[in-house]
Amino acid sequence: MQNLLALLGIDVEYVRGEGNTLYFLDEAGREVPVIDYAGGYGALVLGHNHPEVVATAESFLRSGNPVLAQASRQPAAGRVLARLNEIVRREFGTTEPYYGVFSNSGAESVEVALKHAEFDRQLTVRGLLGEIAEHVERAREAVRSGAATLPDGPDVDVDALVDRVTAANAVVAARPPVLLALEGSFHGKLVGSVQLTHNAAYRTPFASMAAQVRFVPFDQPEAIAKIAEEERAVLLDLRLEDGHVRVVERDFPVFGALFMEVIQGEGGIREVTAEQARTIRQACTAIGCPVVVDEIQSGMGRTGAFFASSPIGLQADYYTLAKGLGGGITKTALTLIRGQRFRPEFDLVHSSTFAKDGLSLAVTLKVLDVLEAEGGQAYRQAAERGDRLTRLLRSLVAAYPQVLKEVRGKGLMLGLEFRDLSDAAAPRLREAARADMFGYVVSAYLLRAHRIRTFPTASAVNTLRFEPSIYLTDEETAALEAALRDVCARLGDQDEEAFFGPAAAH
Amino acid sequence: MQNLLALLGIDVEYVRGEGNTLYFLDEAGREVPVIDYAGGYGALVLGHNHPEVVATAESFLRSGNPVLAQASRQPAAGRVLARLNEIVRREFGTTEPYYGVFSNSGAESVEVALKHAEFDRQLTVRGLLGEIAEHVERAREAVRSGAATLPDGPDVDVDALVDRVTAANAVVAARPPVLLALEGSFHGKLVGSVQLTHNAAYRTPFASMAAQVRFVPFDQPEAIAKIAEEERAVLLDLRLEDGHVRVVERDFPVFGALFMEVIQGEGGIREVTAEQARTIRQACTAIGCPVVVDEIQSGMGRTGAFFASSPIGLQADYYTLAKGLGGGITKTALTLIRGQRFRPEFDLVHSSTFAKDGLSLAVTLKVLDVLEAEGGQAYRQAAERGDRLTRLLRSLVAAYPQVLKEVRGKGLMLGLEFRDLSDAAAPRLREAARADMFGYVVSAYLLRAHRIRTFPTASAVNTLRFEPSIYLTDEETAALEAALRDVCARLGDQDEEAFFGPAAAH
Repeated sequence: MQNLLALLGIDVEYVRGEGNTLYFLDEAGREVPVIDYAGGYGALVLGHNHPEVVATAESFLRSGNPVLAQASRQPAAGRVLARLNEIVRREFGTTEPYYGVFSNSGAESVEVALKHAEFDRQLTVRGLLGEIAEHVERAREAVRSGAATLPDGPDVDVDALVDRVTAANAVVAARPPVLLALEGSFHGKLVGSVQLTHNAAYRTPFASMAAQVRFVPFDQPEAIAKIAEEERAVLLDLRLEDGHVRVVERDFPVFGALFMEVIQGEGGIREVTAEQARTIRQACTAIGCPVVVDEIQSGMGRTGAFFASSPIGLQADYYTLAKGLGGGITKTALTLIRGQRFRPEFDLVHSSTFAKDGLSLAVTLKVLDVLEAEGGQAYRQAAERGDRLTRLLRSLVAAYPQVLKEVRGKGLMLGLEFRDLSDAAAPRLREAARADMFGYVVSAYLLRAHRIRTFPTASAVNTLRFEPSIYLTDEETAALEAALRDVCARLGDQDEEAFFGPAAAH
Repeated sequence: MQNLLALLGIDVEYVRGEGNTLYFLDEAGREVPVIDYAGGYGALVLGHNHPEVVATAESFLRSGNPVLAQASRQPAAGRVLARLNEIVRREFGTTEPYYGVFSNSGAESVEVALKHAEFDRQLTVRGLLGEIAEHVERAREAVRSGAATLPDGPDVDVDALVDRVTAANAVVAARPPVLLALEGSFHGKLVGSVQLTHNAAYRTPFASMAAQVRFVPFDQPEAIAKIAEEERAVLLDLRLEDGHVRVVERDFPVFGALFMEVIQGEGGIREVTAEQARTIRQACTAIGCPVVVDEIQSGMGRTGAFFASSPIGLQADYYTLAKGLGGGITKTALTLIRGQRFRPEFDLVHSSTFAKDGLSLAVTLKVLDVLEAEGGQAYRQAAERGDRLTRLLRSLVAAYPQVLKEVRGKGLMLGLEFRDLSDAAAPRLREAARADMFGYVVSAYLLRAHRIRTFPTASAVNTLRFEPSIYLTDEETAALEAALRDVCARLGDQDEEAFFGPAAAH
């Protein structure tokens, strides 16, 4: 990775961060400002070193409050959860509380959702098998006592029937859960979560280590019903009816959960529409599959609401939160689990040394304060700044239709897709495009020539991401506009020299 | 969990932490000190709020240095790694460098090891399949041109032979890795890592979600060779020899990795001996299975050396580090990977938003400074304090042989096992023991009556853990002695009233 950065001439060391600006030192030791549109891969909703957040962290450290005091009363965790439940109530108009499991990264919050959904499924399976075991014994007794007769079938006696039913059920019960995710998804890179991440380069080397996922094209949510048909499995049960034993089928809970982002981040900043969300939600409800909405990147206010899923009316069974929740300072992550689904026993089988640390909780409470202050001024600001940035990017697409394809996203989670230059006349641009390096080449040029920092989305490499903080200024927007006009003009002219010339100042 | 704490009368809210002491407030608002032998589940090698570590965190926050600046030059990460490599060189006498992958929790550092080991295995498999593909084509050409003949066998023509070989290899290549761990192990609770954690209650509900692990009794390391025989798999290759095509077998790399703690933490503070470690290491080398030494809890100095594996001469292919690495303040985790095994391409498929954050790196550099200062005074102190504590606990075992079974562990990672009271005369003690709650009952009593905090090890519930910081004082040791004498005397007398009476002061 360091080699790649050096190759692109962008192995910069940043020595200071404030708001949307990062600074490196030039050869004379002077600070050179860089406008940061990468925003810590979405974690910097409040920018670098937000003064109130930093002050809270400093004050926590000065207070002598313990950072690690596991298995004690931690009211700050309850306060974080209570505030989030207020936000859920306001944004989704529901009164059902969500439980919370804290962790240390976005990927961990996804693993917690995976684990809880499976724990829930296993308890359901155990309940079903328990019921069936009772029915089976009742049937066995009835046949033995002569009160009931066996069904026509391959079984010569009741014990053979019971053995066949039990064996068949054991096979079904051991099946791994069927997990669903949307094509283009990104849900982290740990052993379980990386299988929910669509990008094959990240996922397939590790495919044999974890449960496999069926990916649904998110403009074809009807695929979910089709998958349900294909994956359907049943447990066998014995029913006593009018003196006869009958073998009946019971639906087996095959699904773990469906994971989705409302606005795909790494997948190229692609929005799920309200209509698509409704169809997905209905399809999942119909097949008893919980919905996990991954708000790790889209949440915490950047789209104009705390939850990007709320304006499209998508209420989830689980929410995963991280990134912005730590205010750019701490590693706070949280999985919210709907009350009606939460299994209290989960608390006894899952834990983490670092989760619920005092420092993260204090910082996160402050982050929620800042976001919720003045009736949600932060959300309005994100929406307003985002609209302005969107209009700017759209005007560029209109001005350079040969170079730019489209703008996607919402609020301060925007993507600008460039046209594919795989057949460009300029040979080095063409090669870069063919090697999936075009977005990196443009990013590097933006940094070298314009002191603007952004990156392509990792799984849609012609799309540049723009995820500044809610404090984005008009000057910063203007600087981006000038820089992108320069990029577009040069690309339009196939002027590739600038993109591949020797690295600038540093 | 909160209910359990309340039931035991220990749902205390700690408001301050300093060194080995946590404070809660009594009803009059006065601070009540509690001596902390739980030590943040091992994370507090340097105690609560170590002044130099806290000062470093505060000073980092004041400096305005960026916390999150992914994909830029981050020399602090290199400095952490360089210092750790110095320590490795010193403790293991090796010059081979280790690469480092940063993450956010101990469990994540285990998942990184799992992923890297599998990535490595997959590249090896791909290389083997590539070689075989060449041989197969060469054989096909030779047969077609009449230069070679087919072997006797079921294949009527060379294409049939090639198809059979290819199909057989595809089946073998898709096999999940065989993972190994020691019985009694604890390696975290994420989707992949929880399968490496031996405790069935934590592991089995999630068994169908991740690759399965074969557990080795750690006093029977010869089991590894036996597992290797059972799991052996081969790829088929075609060799051309004297005008004949021969089908030959190539060993398939079935093993992912063996994971082990040198001193099992959650498993009851159980030490692997130098002899056992040597046998395990040899067995793994013989079967081409890398060894991951999990030093998340045992490392960072608490046993008298930075790596608990170094005094027993166990050099690992991977080390996982976390807990104490963050100095009780930050969530720093790191997987060290031996140079000869590291695959640089891994850097392109694995990443984490929060990893390598500036704050954690600064704190960890300070932690390493504190540990390494004055020629490793911290390690000597851990050893000396640990010896003193061990002697004390041993003297108690000698004094109360009916109550206490043994002391295990090393340095400041000690376990005190109580005798099983499942058949005790006192009915409530007996019941608690039968419900695996005995250790919790004793812990709760220690907190209520003696203001001493500790917990049983989660998977060996009759063992109390003692993991104080290296700053443990003689007074704190004396207080523990008095408290444990009281516990032992009461247990010896079957005086159960104290353990189950109404909760004390708070």
